[in-house]
Amino acid sequence: MDSMPTPALIVDPSTVDRNIAAMATRARSLGVELWPHVKTHKCADILARQLEAGAAGVSVATVREAELAADQHAPAILIAHPPASPERLSRAVALAGRVRLRVALDSEEVARALDEACRDAGVIAEWLWEVDCGVGRTGTPPGAATAERVARLATHTTAATFAGIMAFGGHAYGARDTDGVRAAAREERDAVVSTADALEALGVAVPVRSAGSTPTAHALDHATGLTELRPGNYVFHDATQVGLGVVTIDDCALTVAATVVSRPTDGRVILDAGSKALGADRMTELAPGFGTVVDHPELIVAKLYEEHAILSGAEAGTLPIGTRVRVIPNHACAAANLHRTMHHLGGSGEWTVAARGWRPELR
Amino acid sequence: MDSMPTPALIVDPSTVDRNIAAMATRARSLGVELWPHVKTHKCADILARQLEAGAAGVSVATVREAELAADQHAPAILIAHPPASPERLSRAVALAGRVRLRVALDSEEVARALDEACRDAGVIAEWLWEVDCGVGRTGTPPGAATAERVARLATHTTAATFAGIMAFGGHAYGARDTDGVRAAAREERDAVVSTADALEALGVAVPVRSAGSTPTAHALDHATGLTELRPGNYVFHDATQVGLGVVTIDDCALTVAATVVSRPTDGRVILDAGSKALGADRMTELAPGFGTVVDHPELIVAKLYEEHAILSGAEAGTLPIGTRVRVIPNHACAAANLHRTMHHLGGSGEWTVAARGWRPELR
Repeated sequence: MDSMPTPALIVDPSTVDRNIAAMATRARSLGVELWPHVKTHKCADILARQLEAGAAGVSVATVREAELAADQHAPAILIAHPPASPERLSRAVALAGRVRLRVALDSEEVARALDEACRDAGVIAEWLWEVDCGVGRTGTPPGAATAERVARLATHTTAATFAGIMAFGGHAYGARDTDGVRAAAREERDAVVSTADALEALGVAVPVRSAGSTPTAHALDHATGLTELRPGNYVFHDATQVGLGVVTIDDCALTVAATVVSRPTDGRVILDAGSKALGADRMTELAPGFGTVVDHPELIVAKLYEEHAILSGAEAGTLPIGTRVRVIPNHACAAANLHRTMHHLGGSGEWTVAARGWRPELR
Repeated sequence: MDSMPTPALIVDPSTVDRNIAAMATRARSLGVELWPHVKTHKCADILARQLEAGAAGVSVATVREAELAADQHAPAILIAHPPASPERLSRAVALAGRVRLRVALDSEEVARALDEACRDAGVIAEWLWEVDCGVGRTGTPPGAATAERVARLATHTTAATFAGIMAFGGHAYGARDTDGVRAAAREERDAVVSTADALEALGVAVPVRSAGSTPTAHALDHATGLTELRPGNYVFHDATQVGLGVVTIDDCALTVAATVVSRPTDGRVILDAGSKALGADRMTELAPGFGTVVDHPELIVAKLYEEHAILSGAEAGTLPIGTRVRVIPNHACAAANLHRTMHHLGGSGEWTVAARGWRPELR
């Protein structure tokens, strides 16, 4: 590690394995399927480990990730993003000919377009309707009004058929403390279950009741009424998950190796890993700065430029130029997306971040 | 454009050409050389246009960018980042054997290591000492104390020789208004000139007096005492430069094409371009949100997730699902780094973002 060129993305495979096993155990104990989200790692090697650990299917944010998952023989794929453009729709339909495919959506327009495209291609797919459990992103409000819309729509789609209700509890990232994370997990579950129950009262079967996110998967006290969870970040965890109280630093598997390149004043040192290596995300006020320096808890990653990180703190003056450190990013999913290769901690192996971007890249 | 898969990075070559010509004219009128920063575009095609427009040399943030510039026959290269690791030093020295090379640094350790590595390799290089004009990043304080340190050091390095003083006026991005940008430009110039003058009073020649950044290059009222400028962002500009009052929307050459994928409520629409397409940077409070939607000034890019942007604003409810829009990113340099290809606006051409990452990528 001391001779590795920096910045470099470093993964600890043993921590990844431990995180994958722990979440698989948790899903079993909650009595739900696990549909891990590929967007975090975009990596065939990690996906293979998740499938070996018993994932029932995988969730993806892009069709590119779905194509990677199909190539890895995932048993089923959920594209958790509305396929609302002709190109995305046609690639999704092509995948539906290869693998059991589900698509998330929240509008009649997209459901009907998917249904028509599947019928034209002679394939079948399933759709999940998304309800908004408090995030304010995609999804209609949970409850009776949405149930009535979905019930009407479900009778009109026959090639792409209604399979269930999903929500994303991303407002957990806005929580002020662990009680706030638990509240978000309850709201996520309640949004799915109340809408699904309202639909069943209208005579529509709702086999899939899907909730997501790493903090809510950790914080859910029970999963009654749910059938599956879709966490992504848990394979790596990051400074945000630590800040939210979801895990501890020891559970973080992904770091960026960096070198001290300057110490212009006492109390300030400069690393060669900036926003292009760590990502500029600020996910929660509960995690200070832009990342956590391994073995140097007193240091704060106070500011990022493209190729510089400014570390501040009383201890900063003790790090000589040339010192190697590792930084846990605020957002592991964003950091992984900035690198082509994850180098194995302490070893000679590496994994490729294969599904970066939105289309296969030809060079 | 209407059929392009989204998200996609779009560049308007005619605006790039206009921006390159305007900054070349400005540098000539100020009587300084132009050393444009490659980190913004990492693109051989754009670099070639900057060289054709008369760039005296180019600035880079990574050795990978320097290697691209050397391959493009740049007449001279400034690595504006201290080469404080063995790998970076050896690659810099290898470049010094191919091209006129300058290196920025702010410590005796790095200057002596560079000098020794150049002597061992039988090559020559130049070094610039960086002073901190108010950014709080790399660089020692301007003035007499730094001049005395540099004067002592300059007598001890013979293979890598002292060439001058540089500063980076990045605190312009923290300005509250255009007067603040102008003040940052003055502070940047004064830091360089006062330190250089102090050095010359000690009998040390200071041929290079280098200032940087796009806002300060625009806002400098005169360049007396400077010899060069190092702007980068100006080839594209972005929502941050517009927010700072540096340019107008019409000067922005880089956008991200996106599709409306969801309209869950009136007043909120969702695009398929998130932080992995636009970048999560918030550079200035003077630019609202995370980007500016072309032709829809009332819309605010209120929040980014990895593959979603949330647009808010009264007009949002009028954009049907499937609508194509283009978003000017907050930080064009970060957005370009997230894509492999820049597609030409309205045409069939494209440019490659070739120098992403820190080492040539083998696939």
